[in-house]
Amino acid sequence: MSVYVVGHKNPDSDSVCAAIALADLKTKLGVETIPVAQGELNPESAFILGKFGVVAPAVMTSGAGKKVMLVDHSDLSQSLDDLADAKIIGIVDHHKLGDVTTPNPLEAWIWPVGCTCTVVKAMYDYFGVEIPRNIAGIMLCAILSDTVIFKSATCTDKDKEVAEALAKIAGESDLQALGMEMFKVKSAVDGTPTRDLVFRDFKDFNMNGNKVGIGQLEVVDLAILDGVKADLEKEIQVVKSEGRHSVFLLLTDIMKEGSEMLVVSDDGAIVEKAFGKATENGKVWLDGVMSRKKQVVPNLEKAFAS
Amino acid sequence: MSVYVVGHKNPDSDSVCAAIALADLKTKLGVETIPVAQGELNPESAFILGKFGVVAPAVMTSGAGKKVMLVDHSDLSQSLDDLADAKIIGIVDHHKLGDVTTPNPLEAWIWPVGCTCTVVKAMYDYFGVEIPRNIAGIMLCAILSDTVIFKSATCTDKDKEVAEALAKIAGESDLQALGMEMFKVKSAVDGTPTRDLVFRDFKDFNMNGNKVGIGQLEVVDLAILDGVKADLEKEIQVVKSEGRHSVFLLLTDIMKEGSEMLVVSDDGAIVEKAFGKATENGKVWLDGVMSRKKQVVPNLEKAFAS
Repeated sequence: MSVYVVGHKNPDSDSVCAAIALADLKTKLGVETIPVAQGELNPESAFILGKFGVVAPAVMTSGAGKKVMLVDHSDLSQSLDDLADAKIIGIVDHHKLGDVTTPNPLEAWIWPVGCTCTVVKAMYDYFGVEIPRNIAGIMLCAILSDTVIFKSATCTDKDKEVAEALAKIAGESDLQALGMEMFKVKSAVDGTPTRDLVFRDFKDFNMNGNKVGIGQLEVVDLAILDGVKADLEKEIQVVKSEGRHSVFLLLTDIMKEGSEMLVVSDDGAIVEKAFGKATENGKVWLDGVMSRKKQVVPNLEKAFAS
Repeated sequence: MSVYVVGHKNPDSDSVCAAIALADLKTKLGVETIPVAQGELNPESAFILGKFGVVAPAVMTSGAGKKVMLVDHSDLSQSLDDLADAKIIGIVDHHKLGDVTTPNPLEAWIWPVGCTCTVVKAMYDYFGVEIPRNIAGIMLCAILSDTVIFKSATCTDKDKEVAEALAKIAGESDLQALGMEMFKVKSAVDGTPTRDLVFRDFKDFNMNGNKVGIGQLEVVDLAILDGVKADLEKEIQVVKSEGRHSVFLLLTDIMKEGSEMLVVSDDGAIVEKAFGKATENGKVWLDGVMSRKKQVVPNLEKAFAS
């Protein structure tokens, strides 16, 4: 019986690349393992797989009756809707420990690093399996993406060390250039429906009983978003109306190293509680804030709990 | 700020020895880490530490304001009562994934093997740290204890391989003899209050909203318990009356490789639902059943859920 490796909803490059790499490793260790994704690839992920000639994973949205390994998440709200009907045999992740539980013992590798692919590289090393050149390339790109070319607060020395090792295997010498090439693809918004932009990298969280959606768009220059910002502000109102207490959309400028956050919430004071700074016209600039996981989610969770 | 490593309530030898070993490893990796236990050592653990000259961990029952790593559990009901006031930075375990969650990224090593110490050995290897002779000895004993000298259904090839490697470091050549020496200590019941026997290795579970306690006494011959069985049956009635839906006490004969289970429950049919065999006078013999984790908990969870 095959094992399926699946990342979170609205798959980002780490979810996709970690699933592909982990499936490669597990298959080489003797367990037939297939990478899948919960949705279509975003432009950045498509660029990465295209660049290194790696086949895209199939879309799979049901795990019923299947053996699954989760990558890049351990929250039920981010996982397969029918996860309860699947058998979870493993988790490889780099986030906080979520509310997924299992009835049986499992294999979990969860490290406080910047990217799931950093953990998967350690697993390759532990099991003494060689990483193919093209898989090393996509793992490297996932690290550059998740750590915003090593600039994010989530980036650790381990991520840098692993990226250097993967770059050697992949034959990539200029990581800054590779990262910028990728982020330019990621920055492109022309022709993309507004709703797709909001959901490009969007996660729902349960914060003290409230459904809270947090999206992020990373661009090389905030000016790129000038033409669509008004539409984004309207769209997150709609997204909020679909059963959410709050929606936060981070517009992250990776060069200026900060984020403008668009906010709609039932609690007008939540942003000031979480970040010590109030919104003006539903917006606030958060200097130095680039990481949803490390700089936004914990603050909001604390604010919602208080 | 020191990190405290703590195993589950009613600490068994794996909880104690894994905490000691992990604290040794982490300290050598540069993080001051202190092993603690949620209660006094049981006779087997005291024997093991005494045999290898290892200092017992201090008893710690509050994690408030402390950084903690959990070993040998990830269930809230088995952890520190005030775990919410601690900062969980890691989990090393070999059980099903429980309901512990964290607000921050953490380090988790959870493998489907027979003993937490098997995972800790892999961590020593991964980080390239040498295991001291006496720590290898207590890790070896924890594996022999948790796997019932390799006979339990939870025992994997990895446990055997790790035990052989630890035996070499510890200078132990006859694992069968070492295991029997340990289990004879574990079997001793003379002079122990009945309540202490019930709680010697006792864990509470939340099964579909019901508090379910499951204890286990492992002996080299069930006849050892003949003199105390009536008292045990009375005592689990008391333990049940303290807010539990059911209490199961496994009397495991490690030579005959099976368990007599003493049962008190609000649901008279639960044992038949779980094991296909009804109790007679509150007792049932389960042939081949030696592992609470692998052969008892999953069956009961399924029965409670149905």
